[in-house]
Amino acid sequence: MAVRAAVAGASGYAGGEVLRLLLAHPEVEIGALTGNSNAGQRLGALQPHLLPLAGRVLAETTPEALAGHDVVFLALPHGQSAAVAEQLGPDVLVIDMGADFRLQDPADWEAFYGSPHAGTWPYGLPELPGARAALEGSKRIAVPGCYPTAVSLALYPAYAAHLAEPEAVIVAASGTSGAGKAPKPHLLGSEVMGSMSPYGVGGGHRHTPEMIQNLSGAAGERVAVSFTPTLAPMPRGILATCSAKAVAGVTADAVRAAYEKAYADEPFVHLLPEGHWPATASVQGSNAVQVQVAYDAAVGRVIAISAIDNLTKGTAGGAVQSMNIALGLPETTGLSTIGVAP
Amino acid sequence: MAVRAAVAGASGYAGGEVLRLLLAHPEVEIGALTGNSNAGQRLGALQPHLLPLAGRVLAETTPEALAGHDVVFLALPHGQSAAVAEQLGPDVLVIDMGADFRLQDPADWEAFYGSPHAGTWPYGLPELPGARAALEGSKRIAVPGCYPTAVSLALYPAYAAHLAEPEAVIVAASGTSGAGKAPKPHLLGSEVMGSMSPYGVGGGHRHTPEMIQNLSGAAGERVAVSFTPTLAPMPRGILATCSAKAVAGVTADAVRAAYEKAYADEPFVHLLPEGHWPATASVQGSNAVQVQVAYDAAVGRVIAISAIDNLTKGTAGGAVQSMNIALGLPETTGLSTIGVAP
Amino acid sequence: MAVRAAVAGASGYAGGEVLRLLLAHPEVEIGALTGNSNAGQRLGALQPHLLPLAGRVLAETTPEALAGHDVVFLALPHGQSAAVAEQLGPDVLVIDMGADFRLQDPADWEAFYGSPHAGTWPYGLPELPGARAALEGSKRIAVPGCYPTAVSLALYPAYAAHLAEPEAVIVAASGTSGAGKAPKPHLLGSEVMGSMSPYGVGGGHRHTPEMIQNLSGAAGERVAVSFTPTLAPMPRGILATCSAKAVAGVTADAVRAAYEKAYADEPFVHLLPEGHWPATASVQGSNAVQVQVAYDAAVGRVIAISAIDNLTKGTAGGAVQSMNIALGLPETTGLSTIGVAP
Amino acid sequence: MAVRAAVAGASGYAGGEVLRLLLAHPEVEIGALTGNSNAGQRLGALQPHLLPLAGRVLAETTPEALAGHDVVFLALPHGQSAAVAEQLGPDVLVIDMGADFRLQDPADWEAFYGSPHAGTWPYGLPELPGARAALEGSKRIAVPGCYPTAVSLALYPAYAAHLAEPEAVIVAASGTSGAGKAPKPHLLGSEVMGSMSPYGVGGGHRHTPEMIQNLSGAAGERVAVSFTPTLAPMPRGILATCSAKAVAGVTADAVRAAYEKAYADEPFVHLLPEGHWPATASVQGSNAVQVQVAYDAAVGRVIAISAIDNLTKGTAGGAVQSMNIALGLPETTGLSTIGVAP
Repeated sequence: MAVRAAVAGASGYAGGEVLRLLLAHPEVEIGALTGNSNAGQRLGALQPHLLPLAGRVLAETTPEALAGHDVVFLALPHGQSAAVAEQLGPDVLVIDMGADFRLQDPADWEAFYGSPHAGTWPYGLPELPGARAALEGSKRIAVPGCYPTAVSLALYPAYAAHLAEPEAVIVAASGTSGAGKAPKPHLLGSEVMGSMSPYGVGGGHRHTPEMIQNLSGAAGERVAVSFTPTLAPMPRGILATCSAKAVAGVTADAVRAAYEKAYADEPFVHLLPEGHWPATASVQGSNAVQVQVAYDAAVGRVIAISAIDNLTKGTAGGAVQSMNIALGLPETTGLSTIGVAP
Repeated sequence: MAVRAAVAGASGYAGGEVLRLLLAHPEVEIGALTGNSNAGQRLGALQPHLLPLAGRVLAETTPEALAGHDVVFLALPHGQSAAVAEQLGPDVLVIDMGADFRLQDPADWEAFYGSPHAGTWPYGLPELPGARAALEGSKRIAVPGCYPTAVSLALYPAYAAHLAEPEAVIVAASGTSGAGKAPKPHLLGSEVMGSMSPYGVGGGHRHTPEMIQNLSGAAGERVAVSFTPTLAPMPRGILATCSAKAVAGVTADAVRAAYEKAYADEPFVHLLPEGHWPATASVQGSNAVQVQVAYDAAVGRVIAISAIDNLTKGTAGGAVQSMNIALGLPETTGLSTIGVAP
Repeated sequence: MAVRAAVAGASGYAGGEVLRLLLAHPEVEIGALTGNSNAGQRLGALQPHLLPLAGRVLAETTPEALAGHDVVFLALPHGQSAAVAEQLGPDVLVIDMGADFRLQDPADWEAFYGSPHAGTWPYGLPELPGARAALEGSKRIAVPGCYPTAVSLALYPAYAAHLAEPEAVIVAASGTSGAGKAPKPHLLGSEVMGSMSPYGVGGGHRHTPEMIQNLSGAAGERVAVSFTPTLAPMPRGILATCSAKAVAGVTADAVRAAYEKAYADEPFVHLLPEGHWPATASVQGSNAVQVQVAYDAAVGRVIAISAIDNLTKGTAGGAVQSMNIALGLPETTGLSTIGVAP
Repeated sequence: MAVRAAVAGASGYAGGEVLRLLLAHPEVEIGALTGNSNAGQRLGALQPHLLPLAGRVLAETTPEALAGHDVVFLALPHGQSAAVAEQLGPDVLVIDMGADFRLQDPADWEAFYGSPHAGTWPYGLPELPGARAALEGSKRIAVPGCYPTAVSLALYPAYAAHLAEPEAVIVAASGTSGAGKAPKPHLLGSEVMGSMSPYGVGGGHRHTPEMIQNLSGAAGERVAVSFTPTLAPMPRGILATCSAKAVAGVTADAVRAAYEKAYADEPFVHLLPEGHWPATASVQGSNAVQVQVAYDAAVGRVIAISAIDNLTKGTAGGAVQSMNIALGLPETTGLSTIGVAP
């Protein structure tokens, strides 16, 4: 009776995190685990923190290996999900944690990824207006990018309430796990500890069109986004500092009220009491989102800041939350709002 | 029907961790939370990662506040537990996460703590020979120190199997949360990041007699312990590197066999496959213990290494595990062996 | 013949850093070291990295202790410098590393610090237009704040060349040493490691008016500043991500040209080659500034990013650089542009 | 008149560190910089912290590129130095920072490295008895390994004074730069931050025979070494915790006296005052060594602990110190005992 779930790409950080969460999910039974370069290896050697699965061996990512599951999570490099998804029947719930099916406009995909667009699936950020309904009963889910999750939850209430001009300036700091597990010199511990550095500056980051898509959807008009990601010396977490010019007549109270309304009933998004600010450590390992907002009267800007765990709410937790909705389970099943701190 | 639990000292690291675990415990309902200097404050301001308890307010640590609970966890400074425990009736399960009731020999206590000895309670390290039985039905539990937990689980099988000479050399690295939340200059982030340093060198650390007690109990003779703790630039985790001269005739196979036997049925202790070594990240936030052992034939020493999370298995997880035993619940209830990594 | 220098406040981070630099300065002889709560202690116990001064003992900060020096560096809490400076004669070069004499407008001081304004001294950021000349021969120097140093050097060329609209959005990440050595719970290693968090959001940070002053001076009109500081899990370094709407007609080439011109002859500011971005580790322990700039055509914004060491160029290195100018020494004497990396 | 120095292997951590030090050396002019896989690249892209050399381009490591220098530093993978050294004339000072020429016994080399032994050069740890004299005027220098540097300086005085039994137990923690710059999954920032883990346990680390060689030389008899290295979450630094059983009749005073005598005149080794303990941050970026020693009467062991920067005193600083001696320059020229802290 349990939901039987497979994970393709079980050796990477997204795959490991979805397994960590599924192990704690009372309705899920973990089925096939697949990899490519790591096929044949014990999971204990690749993900030593997943003790209950230490003895499992990775299969190759083939249709046969993935057959016979109710849910298949894809944690594959960008561009590889469509080919795998095609071979899974229409009754299997396929949850793509890659970028392939997030964007609505094929031109955006092609501009940032350079390959033909594979399509658009229901978008796994239930907190956005209309998103939850689109996920119910769906058999295909595109899990949002980690930065778009943090940024959209920080800013969409301001846009949905028409409080902000359609030009957002965003600087976000991410832990290094967001860059994946493939070893590259600039991701070595020796390089990242003690250092902050930006990358993809000037509009080049591939998550930019996804943020534009989400904020524009909330605003009902195109929102321009200046996005600068930075790499922070920590394994997990995103802190997104977002701001936009307030429209004329906005007050601090109006801003606060918009956010209180947006998040009053959201189980994972916590609007902090005034005077408190998000910290990534507080949401580490959890599906919680900490949000705070201020109105800076001296410059007439709304400043909204969110903290998430990039691997949990930013990837695998968002995936499980969306799975719960798609399967008709209580949305919070198997997910926690309790961070591992200090 | 739920077990109603109070936590005295809820604003510190041990108190926060026990609350993190109790929130995930299916049989426990969290009752009073108390503090002293922080009484009257919202828990959300003190432990912002414990989102479900954010609105709870700390009471003062008084008999009245702690009355009416089935279990009371004491996370108090050393020397303060006895006075509080006395005022709780004999039918309340009192679990002391401080040092007060760990040592059997009053002379040890007085030598290292300088005050009169309060007594000895059943010792909450169920993996030690005889310890589990002593906890069953007990109404008083002394939770072991974090270092003694790591060291005892690394070394006791060698002593219990009479494979090692009674003189152990131990160097352990601990994350900074082991030093508590009271702000001191040498614990500032600026001081600890990028730095390793020892402290309590030469036998001065207060956990030393507890290690001697545990290892001597296993060996059936007094084991001398040279213990050097070091402070590592990480929030959580202990890596204990322990060694002792092997007795004549010991082989690598005999050592391996002793550890396999000791931990074959332990739910939280994982003897790693040969060639793999513990890492504190792998057990972060979990009650798991990673252990590995080697025999260095060139020097004739048994080298045993363990990794734990100092706040979980090393403190609050050990406390909950012992509570489960004392209450007759399945020992693993509410506890995880899955680390939060990377 | 050597320049004899005293340091008041030698036990803190700014005081320690200026001593680290003065020890390497060929023209300086280190005289009195003073403190208040730490008077009477050996420097070796307070600043164990300053081996050549380990045996020196801190005096109390009195006029007598500071008398007889050519230069006195003040590393005191905000608001305490004026009283000490008054008692030093007009021929002594007094270099204040606190905030007291940085601001030109008394109203700014009073709004952010709440006490009467002590005055304005020549401003120790020689790279700003006109600043170098004002420092030559001066006997009083106000060392800039660490954030204003990073932000002003990132953005002033865009304003000086009239390329940007007078509204800047700045998000900066700082290492924890910027918060000083006084122990506070939120600065504990356990709290900061693995976490990013903002503070002083919405215009509240005291460095904001100083940034406005510098950028407005370069622009020739008032520049509004939205400034959000964040605390990063590293001991040292500031990464400032700054942006402003470009004025009509701006091109990427024009932006690049303005920065190349501004920094062609600056010994400490390094405009990185295109495609490379600053990293705080690259300037660790050095007086160097890494700057990069981009024009994001999609949103019409200039994005300028700088990396400094907050304690070196951001505090003590800026102080020594300014001292060199004031004393007529070559500006780079005793200062390095070589970072300690990795 | 300047000493002209080349660096073969300038893109790695050892090569970068020797360049950082040579840039500050008043008698050295930096000549050829070579690499293999990175030949043709700008140093600014590979070592962005070495600002004054940013425009230099790496040549291939050929005899032609290295010709015409007074000193050639070899920062090459183990086993490659001999072939390069052969092609440099006997009048060139060749300083090998690899392992190739450190070991005296060919059997040790072959047991740990598996290839034929290339030979033995004068050993660049001047603080060892007799080592300084052997370096004077030498044209070949083998720079010690980082761990053997830390361990030998911690323990040799105890052995030279015949205070300790010939069996040492050593646990050392190293920053990640000791593992080099070649990207491997277990060295990713995501893996190392927040984690401590051992490696090479049970006598397998290649630095073990070098420690035995040094300590045996001091003791006048063979010293057995149990060595466990651990990887710590910091870029730089080694903390070596070493102990050995004291011989009969040893007192704390005798131990202290032996260390005071050994290091009374050493410019880089600082025996800390009693009650203070080494910290790696205190020696970061410097050639200093902090040493402390205790006698634990309860177990009859001498505990000696040292802190070094693995890249400076542990590699490139030791190389420059030895170069100074070989060339007849003052030993401390261009080297600092001042750490970059916090």
